[in-house]
Amino acid sequence: MSDADEIEAIRQLKYRYFRFLDQKRYDDLAELCIPECTFSYHSGTYTYPNRDAAVAFLKERMHRPECLSLHQGHHPEITLRSATTAAGIWYLQDVVFFLDERTRLEGNGWYEDRYVKVGPDWKIAHTGYDRSFEITTPLPDDAMVFNGFAEGGAFRAGAGF
Amino acid sequence: MSDADEIEAIRQLKYRYFRFLDQKRYDDLAELCIPECTFSYHSGTYTYPNRDAAVAFLKERMHRPECLSLHQGHHPEITLRSATTAAGIWYLQDVVFFLDERTRLEGNGWYEDRYVKVGPDWKIAHTGYDRSFEITTPLPDDAMVFNGFAEGGAFRAGAGF
Amino acid sequence: MSDADEIEAIRQLKYRYFRFLDQKRYDDLAELCIPECTFSYHSGTYTYPNRDAAVAFLKERMHRPECLSLHQGHHPEITLRSATTAAGIWYLQDVVFFLDERTRLEGNGWYEDRYVKVGPDWKIAHTGYDRSFEITTPLPDDAMVFNGFAEGGAFRAGAGF
Repeated sequence: MSDADEIEAIRQLKYRYFRFLDQKRYDDLAELCIPECTFSYHSGTYTYPNRDAAVAFLKERMHRPECLSLHQGHHPEITLRSATTAAGIWYLQDVVFFLDERTRLEGNGWYEDRYVKVGPDWKIAHTGYDRSFEITTPLPDDAMVFNGFAEGGAFRAGAGF
Repeated sequence: MSDADEIEAIRQLKYRYFRFLDQKRYDDLAELCIPECTFSYHSGTYTYPNRDAAVAFLKERMHRPECLSLHQGHHPEITLRSATTAAGIWYLQDVVFFLDERTRLEGNGWYEDRYVKVGPDWKIAHTGYDRSFEITTPLPDDAMVFNGFAEGGAFRAGAGF
Repeated sequence: MSDADEIEAIRQLKYRYFRFLDQKRYDDLAELCIPECTFSYHSGTYTYPNRDAAVAFLKERMHRPECLSLHQGHHPEITLRSATTAAGIWYLQDVVFFLDERTRLEGNGWYEDRYVKVGPDWKIAHTGYDRSFEITTPLPDDAMVFNGFAEGGAFRAGAGF
């Protein structure tokens, strides 16, 4: 593949990561990371030495249907280091509602990721971001909420792709 | 064109769709869809069997200047099916102010689109998204509003391109 | 370089611009613009005839740590005009907290930029955007704030790239 194709494959990896995260598909998300993957979320507040530990954190923090999350990554600056290693900067925007806590959180951050190619597939070897802000405000009592997970809804967008 | 060029052309199609939507340029938006295009917005709440029906809905819902909307599509996962057909997943973020209703809506969703190439141009053949959330809250009384449409302003960003 | 490579280089230029803006790295941001670069922010409300004037404005408006900003550009529609000139449309989303004024601002806008290639590097020759909306609301008294700049924190994401 050309360098442009390799970089596109890394972007696609990250897009699936975010999709699986917000669709609460943690097993699918885990497949995108090597087992030894390291994690450093929120300016180092949440660090994990491997994939299992990070996925356990994500499930504990966000799996319940009262948590509604948006995580989107923008402005990919991907650098190939070798035929099988790469690094990437992304600009995060996240918005998370915790309906049970009646809060809305919004934040930003810059990811500095590392990727490794395992056979034909790029995988995440390290992911983490530093925030410049995270602001949490109360969710008004009269907020109207549509919750796609409220009735056991499962998302499979792209499942057939 | 190479596959990468075809995929880029489909991304450009979607970018213009969102630009025309939020600039209230419905006739320009309609040109991006085939007449038989089908639509399924908001987890199937709003479905339309063809372009004319969908555009009528969009105009009724959003044309007035008291509606200020942001619709942005991220994380494109485009798959070419044949020389003239393709599918795409996108991650939507939308924020819509209805000044006359004094509300602010924010939501997300995953598009699953189909595209078809008609002569040299890719067109939208189906578009629709499932949401995981949509939250509507009151707009505070003391909100300060700049409204680019308030004085009959029309947007032509990119008109010369 | 191929046309696709030139366009990618222009996207990377814009990504760095936004990263340096929100990381308050104004000297790095200035390097991305030619000295004669012109600026027209917020539908022409803030116009500047050259780089120095615009950077002075940005510093005055946003440098203090009580200003926490997110500026993200989406949907790039880049057109090469010649071997050394190009134009670009982008769809802006911005969210800015002024903690000292206890406000939150959110807006959108369409950039219409011009770029020029100086030696091997693309630079910004003109940048400006028209908004369809900007809404400013009070920040609730009980908002919880994480401020990455509060303790003299400096961001260098990608500094080693």
